[in-house]
Amino acid sequence: MQSFEVLAEQFSKFFSRRHFPAQPASLYDPNEYFLHQGGKRIRPVLCLMGNEMFDDIKVDAWHVGTSIELFHNFTLIHDDIMDKAPVRRGKETVHEKFGTNTAILAGDVMLVSAYEELNKIGLEFLRPILTLFNKTAKEVCEGQQMDMDFEKMESVSFEAYIKMIELKTSVALAASLQTGAILGGAGERNQHLLYEFGRKLGIAFQVQDDYLDAFGDPAKFGKQMGGDILANKKTFLLIHTLETAAAAKQIELKKLLQSNTADKIEKVQQLYKDCNADKWALQLKQQYLEEALKHLEDIAVLSKRKEPLRSLAHYLIRREY
Amino acid sequence: MQSFEVLAEQFSKFFSRRHFPAQPASLYDPNEYFLHQGGKRIRPVLCLMGNEMFDDIKVDAWHVGTSIELFHNFTLIHDDIMDKAPVRRGKETVHEKFGTNTAILAGDVMLVSAYEELNKIGLEFLRPILTLFNKTAKEVCEGQQMDMDFEKMESVSFEAYIKMIELKTSVALAASLQTGAILGGAGERNQHLLYEFGRKLGIAFQVQDDYLDAFGDPAKFGKQMGGDILANKKTFLLIHTLETAAAAKQIELKKLLQSNTADKIEKVQQLYKDCNADKWALQLKQQYLEEALKHLEDIAVLSKRKEPLRSLAHYLIRREY
Repeated sequence: MQSFEVLAEQFSKFFSRRHFPAQPASLYDPNEYFLHQGGKRIRPVLCLMGNEMFDDIKVDAWHVGTSIELFHNFTLIHDDIMDKAPVRRGKETVHEKFGTNTAILAGDVMLVSAYEELNKIGLEFLRPILTLFNKTAKEVCEGQQMDMDFEKMESVSFEAYIKMIELKTSVALAASLQTGAILGGAGERNQHLLYEFGRKLGIAFQVQDDYLDAFGDPAKFGKQMGGDILANKKTFLLIHTLETAAAAKQIELKKLLQSNTADKIEKVQQLYKDCNADKWALQLKQQYLEEALKHLEDIAVLSKRKEPLRSLAHYLIRREY
Repeated sequence: MQSFEVLAEQFSKFFSRRHFPAQPASLYDPNEYFLHQGGKRIRPVLCLMGNEMFDDIKVDAWHVGTSIELFHNFTLIHDDIMDKAPVRRGKETVHEKFGTNTAILAGDVMLVSAYEELNKIGLEFLRPILTLFNKTAKEVCEGQQMDMDFEKMESVSFEAYIKMIELKTSVALAASLQTGAILGGAGERNQHLLYEFGRKLGIAFQVQDDYLDAFGDPAKFGKQMGGDILANKKTFLLIHTLETAAAAKQIELKKLLQSNTADKIEKVQQLYKDCNADKWALQLKQQYLEEALKHLEDIAVLSKRKEPLRSLAHYLIRREY
């Protein structure tokens, strides 16, 4: 049983090879450029951990992990085009550096490569893993579309936002774990429980992300605080406050959204606090974390086999906030 | 043994169902819009024909055909973005009607759906067909990138142009035939010969396409004549003339490329004729057609089983020009 950190280091080494042919360089160099900027490689390591919970890690898990990571990077390249993001991981995005057309095509061929990697696994696993991979890939696209749709909408319901987060973020984490469980020989019930652990953990993580953007310590998280507030991004905090605050507070918040004064961040933070949205978010995060851990505990393997994922959950969802 | 026309009608009916879920409509309606504008469905019918050359058509061939057609439409949606094409099949392109971001994502999810459809076939065929599909998909992306690269280049060699056409157009036709052959139980040599038939036929078709743009009868082909000339598009005619014409003619052609006078089309046509590029193109087309047919004849099945593909080749590559 290896920890996330140990497996992440192993996977990063394994993954840091060239993934594409040399020619045409105008197509493949952008992909190599992007892949070699690093990343936390969370999803492939979840696959390895899902496998190791039930059995020794199979060679196939490295292929599936690679496939999942290629898929994830494909989504980042295309999402960055859609979001017009100039920078990712501290470096120019692919479309910024190589042009939008090449970024579209580089993403396309990276998605195909993800399927090439998947096709290397044992035939006995190909059908179930390809099925799960396809279902999840479609859901991730649906989540991205919902996210873009939400940007244009005046208001978004709490349920719709949760659904979007699930599709855009959670299902990929959940499916990564489940592919590992499949390779480890887990039964359907155990697979399902591990998937649900990942799904709930993903939502908890997003709640935390939204919370930290508004209330986190920028020195600790290396992220500009209040970015979501400045961009009027729909977050758990904004959606909850618009849905539940007293009428006067709602009007005040809507006015703040229309402004771009220097004290916008500070004022919105204060309003969130006045409405107890900060405390609500921490509770919501805790609730999803506990549900995730409950699913993990229900998995029918020895408790010590769950320790690495339990630790990871507590590490990702920090208790200190 | 059924003809292209009969199978095309059957496939078009089979394909004219809804392919995507209802929600999110903002993602899936654009795809349904695009798929229902028709198209000749050449590639899936080649799969059916490749199958029927060796055996009765399997249910799996309809799934593979659907997958191939979804893949083809994914490439069209993304290519139209890259080419900034406003119209396709007489209707607004997806990015023009629904926006570039949605067109990127709609194409992405269509590619995933192609793999979903492929995953419906019998497990005994999944590995070889997925392998061929992935290889071909990568090549098509490479061809599109080369095509974009060529636009920015001063000169392109004949060899490089042939390679680009092969990747962008021919291999998809060849692979469609081969997937059918695999499903029909063909041996490796027969599969290879059928692939080569498709590859050569694809090149012959492109030579004809380039020829018809310059010299075809617009009344017969419903296409604006000289579009390639006006756009300085690199074609077989342009590349060959720049490579082989006498120095004076080359200088004259390069001057014409820089001009946009009313008689540009007429003058370039005349120059091509002066250099015998028109006759050369017809010979080149004939050469590739004959090579294609030679491969077809070498396939080890009864001659009458080859009749539908022989007819199709002669129909696509018209002798009258």
